[in-house]
Amino acid sequence: MKKTTTRLADGRELIYYDARDDAVRDATDARPLDRVATASEIRHDRLLGDRVAIASHRQGRTYHPPADECPLCPSREGRRSEIPADDYDVAVFENRFPSLAGDGGRCEVVCFTPDHDASFAGLTDEQAALVLDAWTDRTAELSQLPGVEQVFCFENRGADIGVTLGHPHGQIYAYPFVTPRTERMLASLAAHRETTGRNLFDDVVADELADGRRIVLDGAHWVAFVPYAAHWPYEVHLYPKRRVPDLLALDDAARTEFPRLYLEVLRRFDRIFGSGQPPTPYIAAWHQAPVRAPQRTDFALHLELFTIRRTSGKLKFLAGSESGMNVFINDVPPEAAAERLREVASES
Amino acid sequence: MKKTTTRLADGRELIYYDARDDAVRDATDARPLDRVATASEIRHDRLLGDRVAIASHRQGRTYHPPADECPLCPSREGRRSEIPADDYDVAVFENRFPSLAGDGGRCEVVCFTPDHDASFAGLTDEQAALVLDAWTDRTAELSQLPGVEQVFCFENRGADIGVTLGHPHGQIYAYPFVTPRTERMLASLAAHRETTGRNLFDDVVADELADGRRIVLDGAHWVAFVPYAAHWPYEVHLYPKRRVPDLLALDDAARTEFPRLYLEVLRRFDRIFGSGQPPTPYIAAWHQAPVRAPQRTDFALHLELFTIRRTSGKLKFLAGSESGMNVFINDVPPEAAAERLREVASES
Repeated sequence: MKKTTTRLADGRELIYYDARDDAVRDATDARPLDRVATASEIRHDRLLGDRVAIASHRQGRTYHPPADECPLCPSREGRRSEIPADDYDVAVFENRFPSLAGDGGRCEVVCFTPDHDASFAGLTDEQAALVLDAWTDRTAELSQLPGVEQVFCFENRGADIGVTLGHPHGQIYAYPFVTPRTERMLASLAAHRETTGRNLFDDVVADELADGRRIVLDGAHWVAFVPYAAHWPYEVHLYPKRRVPDLLALDDAARTEFPRLYLEVLRRFDRIFGSGQPPTPYIAAWHQAPVRAPQRTDFALHLELFTIRRTSGKLKFLAGSESGMNVFINDVPPEAAAERLREVASES
Repeated sequence: MKKTTTRLADGRELIYYDARDDAVRDATDARPLDRVATASEIRHDRLLGDRVAIASHRQGRTYHPPADECPLCPSREGRRSEIPADDYDVAVFENRFPSLAGDGGRCEVVCFTPDHDASFAGLTDEQAALVLDAWTDRTAELSQLPGVEQVFCFENRGADIGVTLGHPHGQIYAYPFVTPRTERMLASLAAHRETTGRNLFDDVVADELADGRRIVLDGAHWVAFVPYAAHWPYEVHLYPKRRVPDLLALDDAARTEFPRLYLEVLRRFDRIFGSGQPPTPYIAAWHQAPVRAPQRTDFALHLELFTIRRTSGKLKFLAGSESGMNVFINDVPPEAAAERLREVASES
């Protein structure tokens, strides 16, 4: 893997990750690009105890551009995108319309492939491995930035989930605080350690393996299951079998197995609702230990993948119970979801 | 107000709330209706510490029926709905496809008006007062049910928010546990009491009144403001100025003022995005003290109203940051939202 770091016309960082060690990335960004004012403000909600990023500069962001104006495609003569090169393998750049900016954190865009019409599920094992390398490297670099407390790599896929650019891409948020969801996991972890002396992540994974009903894929180094209390109609959690706090700590065996296993889960996701359905909208969220938390070695890196589609043509909305009270209603029993995800396995 | 309690053909309760004390509600439900099996299961997520309701029987629920098959309209010859009467003022019945059922709680539907094409914002003060009476009575009755820990009255409005029945209606969830959002408020309340000796709700409301920039309406007995750390593009919280734990504890002055004030806020919501826009989708959520919490007298009844629309034709989606990490990104500064909500005041 070769990494080339450069800058866009307005000073934002752009990093190429290439499979070939002899790749040359010397194209420069010739656009007359003004720096967008991007002061986001982090506000604390005293009643809920969480933080909200107020990012008013984002209202003008690019919204469902036509395919021939895609800012994530390689640049061509007469059509300059966010990536000056005329080709790339994986490219990461600072978001021009970030939710988090300045002292408030940093947001990056990860282009998975130069192919506008591809999807993550359609990548080769080698391409997915390169994305894993990019996620890992970004986690390492962003963790070093002053003020960054947590690095979150994720993919939103599908217009139904609010994605405004069709080109296959993910995002990375470097938060200047530990997120509420992670804080809750850390609190559960500490309470479980206190009462049982054991690691809660280890127990959850061991219990799922012992029960078996919700297992989707059981690899040598990773396991994928629908969690017992799944919040979403179809939800899969992927854990490396050897617990590690973050992507940097994965060993070679786990890194090597991941692409095949994850791609298989994503391909099954697109088959859940039968043929003739548009691709399944999903969110894929990497949970990593916070940068500086004392408990970080107890944390278990894992990927949470879920769709908001509940059945053909119907979406799960977060309405009164979910948005008003944070109580999820799930119409699909986790055991039935797991069974469906086993049924639609690729033929081998 | 006259209240008439009866039962539907499958045994579910139906309650009429009439403005006239001489209303007679003796129509019987002549439909051959089988009881829907409705065992919902409450599962505990050990890592997040919350609960999920697994309600698989709901997948077959009524989904965007044509207007002439609306189950919430009064019954007519040849078209029998969930309400056997040929007219009503406000009607409440047990949901046929409940998210919570049996030991797992109870779900009710509140029909605000017999007029299929109306909306809450279009009700008269008298109609809205009757809905307030119904919410209050249901809170009293559901609080008495064994196992119920929290009563949640809410309205989801608009297909964009997942509403599958166009008839103006709300819902009531009687949860068999204290919800995570309320638990968090109770924890903040306790911590604030510990460090300052004061009530956090009182401080939040006093601070908003003193600051003034986010005030939308300041009545004699209620105040409506955009919260400092608003999570949603347009969000308004309504608090009675005399703190009470729940709807039952509201005094007559507050009950009398509420309809006019709330209807004005709802009408402004429909004007946020200018004329020619479809009605604003929203969630309106009543926060009440849990039934049995020791701190219940410290809790402050309030209504949280918010829309998922962020600008004309564009919705705020809960994508990676919100759904993956519970960190909200808000593109509309709360001060700008409040200014807009003052601009679109009704002419008086």
